[in-house]
Amino acid sequence: MPYEPVAYDPQNIFAKMLRGEIPCIKLYEDEATLAFMDIMPRADGHVLAIPKSPARNLLDVDAATLAAMAPAITRLSRAIVAATGADGLTMQQFSEAAGGQVVFHLHVHLLPRWNGVSLRPHTGTMANKEDLEAMAAKIRAALAG
Amino acid sequence: MPYEPVAYDPQNIFAKMLRGEIPCIKLYEDEATLAFMDIMPRADGHVLAIPKSPARNLLDVDAATLAAMAPAITRLSRAIVAATGADGLTMQQFSEAAGGQVVFHLHVHLLPRWNGVSLRPHTGTMANKEDLEAMAAKIRAALAG
Repeated sequence: MPYEPVAYDPQNIFAKMLRGEIPCIKLYEDEATLAFMDIMPRADGHVLAIPKSPARNLLDVDAATLAAMAPAITRLSRAIVAATGADGLTMQQFSEAAGGQVVFHLHVHLLPRWNGVSLRPHTGTMANKEDLEAMAAKIRAALAG
Repeated sequence: MPYEPVAYDPQNIFAKMLRGEIPCIKLYEDEATLAFMDIMPRADGHVLAIPKSPARNLLDVDAATLAAMAPAITRLSRAIVAATGADGLTMQQFSEAAGGQVVFHLHVHLLPRWNGVSLRPHTGTMANKEDLEAMAAKIRAALAG
């Protein structure tokens, strides 16, 4: 059965973060994009960037919304690597459950990587909030530096 | 040791493709972006999109170059899913060897995904050229349709 576009659900948790209904550990914000710590990090310094406009994933987002995320993605990538002392970075974006998507608001994963170190599996275990806040402070400092 | 930006090497294989020095199975081209079949596909319909400007990865690309890839990425994502009958899509981009990068010209992987089917490991085995050409024809038709 061919893929049929799915309507955006405004009750997803990232939409609630954008509306301020639930908290996030915010790192960066501009007119188009919000970035915050992934609370189930697959690497220390795992960041998510999302468009402020409603978009489910790559299969419905308009090109202008995706393009507007580029300044956030480039700035964050460098700040994450600088803040963590990583050797590289992996970017991932999942569209639909088959693609790996769990929350149905478009989000880009930015994962710092170290030579010889695999990503941790996605376990669903939440990281310690103080550890996440400490990492966020480092990334914010690198963004400002 | 903190990450130090690495200079772009114009002898990488994607730079050679852009100069027409080596062939590729081309799918799509606009002013900013070239897209072609990955010859070592981790899923049937695995496509790579690259900027025409020199950029090593997310750690050196300028935001405008990345933003200019958005029309190609959105159009290709939908065409790949339509052409393959996939249930979803995974986008990946690797920066530096630690991040998974093998060719040092920025490239975005677009991988069709099916429910319950994992990506194949990156084995380094080349796919049959006729199979790649047949898939490319389907994706080009979806782009045009």
